[in-house]
Amino acid sequence: MTKIVVDAMGSDNYPTPDVEGAVMAAREYGVEIILTGDASKIQPILDSTNGANLPVRVINAPEMLTMHDKGEDLVMKARHKEAQNSMAVGLDLVKNGEADAFVTAGNTGAAMVTSLFRLGRIRGVDRPALAGPFPTATGICSVVDIGANPDCKPENLLQFAIMGSVFAERVRGVKNPRVGLISNGEEAGKGSELVKDAYPLLANAKLNFIGNVEGKEIFNGHADVAVTDGFTGNVFLKSTEAVAKLLIEKIRESIRGGGPLAIVGGALIRPAMRKVRKLLDPSEEGAAPLLGVNGLVFIGHGRSDMLAMKNAVRVAKNAAEAKVLDAIKLAIEESLKK
Amino acid sequence: MTKIVVDAMGSDNYPTPDVEGAVMAAREYGVEIILTGDASKIQPILDSTNGANLPVRVINAPEMLTMHDKGEDLVMKARHKEAQNSMAVGLDLVKNGEADAFVTAGNTGAAMVTSLFRLGRIRGVDRPALAGPFPTATGICSVVDIGANPDCKPENLLQFAIMGSVFAERVRGVKNPRVGLISNGEEAGKGSELVKDAYPLLANAKLNFIGNVEGKEIFNGHADVAVTDGFTGNVFLKSTEAVAKLLIEKIRESIRGGGPLAIVGGALIRPAMRKVRKLLDPSEEGAAPLLGVNGLVFIGHGRSDMLAMKNAVRVAKNAAEAKVLDAIKLAIEESLKK
Repeated sequence: MTKIVVDAMGSDNYPTPDVEGAVMAAREYGVEIILTGDASKIQPILDSTNGANLPVRVINAPEMLTMHDKGEDLVMKARHKEAQNSMAVGLDLVKNGEADAFVTAGNTGAAMVTSLFRLGRIRGVDRPALAGPFPTATGICSVVDIGANPDCKPENLLQFAIMGSVFAERVRGVKNPRVGLISNGEEAGKGSELVKDAYPLLANAKLNFIGNVEGKEIFNGHADVAVTDGFTGNVFLKSTEAVAKLLIEKIRESIRGGGPLAIVGGALIRPAMRKVRKLLDPSEEGAAPLLGVNGLVFIGHGRSDMLAMKNAVRVAKNAAEAKVLDAIKLAIEESLKK
Repeated sequence: MTKIVVDAMGSDNYPTPDVEGAVMAAREYGVEIILTGDASKIQPILDSTNGANLPVRVINAPEMLTMHDKGEDLVMKARHKEAQNSMAVGLDLVKNGEADAFVTAGNTGAAMVTSLFRLGRIRGVDRPALAGPFPTATGICSVVDIGANPDCKPENLLQFAIMGSVFAERVRGVKNPRVGLISNGEEAGKGSELVKDAYPLLANAKLNFIGNVEGKEIFNGHADVAVTDGFTGNVFLKSTEAVAKLLIEKIRESIRGGGPLAIVGGALIRPAMRKVRKLLDPSEEGAAPLLGVNGLVFIGHGRSDMLAMKNAVRVAKNAAEAKVLDAIKLAIEESLKK
């Protein structure tokens, strides 16, 4: 049975959504769950879930990393041999082969740094990257990187492309994934220096490279993977999230202020609107894989609720069972041979 | 009377929206309009607008710059002394003091390059930048730069900030505009190398600098100006546009597929939806000013319709009457003294 470690101290409302989502996943997907965190806080929630017959156990990790952990201090906590925080303890289980993947909704920076120190990098990968799943008109596009590396070299983008492509193929079942390079214009030759230098690397790699892409291609579903530096990817993530939120709010406001007929109309379309919000809700796709570390790590939004946590475990299970880590290692090895 | 030159050959459907929008502006805002372009194409449309008594005249410029003009070839056409394209002819009118501002919905790259060659730069500005007006929850935020400079230095961002702030204050009437620096995190210290180096420059300038901002702050209306390099700004523009479009489409689709009640509901909220689309439609704000060239230039979307053209002329008129060019020159001069 696939074993997934879930950081019980990750989400903003920890440990309730983290524990309840993990238990739901154990029930629905037939995975074994190991919860890491403060056992005295986890156990009462676990007891309330009627999950006694499920393969869920707790490994006590009394400390936790928070939004306040950064810089030198974070590095110390991340690398300390005897670290007792829920991330380090959970990641060590993956490192030692006692679990197949690690899922957390905690501080992204802390999760990345701790993953790097506990698991190390895949040989040939200079910088691990976060692959954010974006809902599109037709499916999902992984944007890599959405924030691990604010400054990148062309070679980093090539590695992101290879890893993102393997992930899309193995885990999402996309055949021959279409890989685009995010740029300020579709034509080849458009872009920052970084993009212009990365373009030939991607074009000459064993990838289904479709050239430069803009927001339109991504949201229309023309790319399965969109590669960019972590600064641009993070701005992409935050700005599209914010504009979608504003749009929904403005629609609500406009309906409320539109007189009785509009209000009736608003009530009638409520199920349709709910469907749209669900469709465009990144939490449906669970968490973002941290590609390039030597183990499977999934980092979810701090706002993750029970369902988002459950979905994150599902994606982690799929990734583990698809042996995506081995496939990424192989693809990176092959890219180094040329 | 303020004189605005309108490139009649700019928009995708030129010259109809360009000419009709300009005539509407002459009628509504009391501006004098000079249309540049192929007179044989412009005149019939002009004749059909019942604008005979309005201060609208045509200056024949038989050539035009298109999406195909780029690179060396574009530079030649942009700088040629006797250039007869509608942009060069129009910009020369501004340069020679025969008009107060130039408005075009043509090829952005061509408009920028031609502006640079015909008008030159403001002393102290290394790189002109496009300031894109984004509708927010409470008003407008100018994102500078949205595409003129894919690669920037920290000093460029400082200049963008100063120019954007003066524009917001003078033209949009914002007192003490709040200037943010787009980053992958709100905390100071977050960002790419460029952002980290630009931060202290902005913090020490005569600006109401509010620190780093993300999509959330921008769309919530917490910043009046958001500064970024042209690569990131362009990705911001294209991706938010694309996600908003997808969201609206998905809502429509979901309403149509939601059964008879949803369809009735959809009909009832149509006016409210129209209001939202108008609110979030950048064409309401007319065109983006090209800040840093020695003259007032406004570049609109190729898809601009008559109303977008009219609005662009309105903003150009406001900018000219607010003497924003002099104010920008002064602010840049002052920033150089330190």
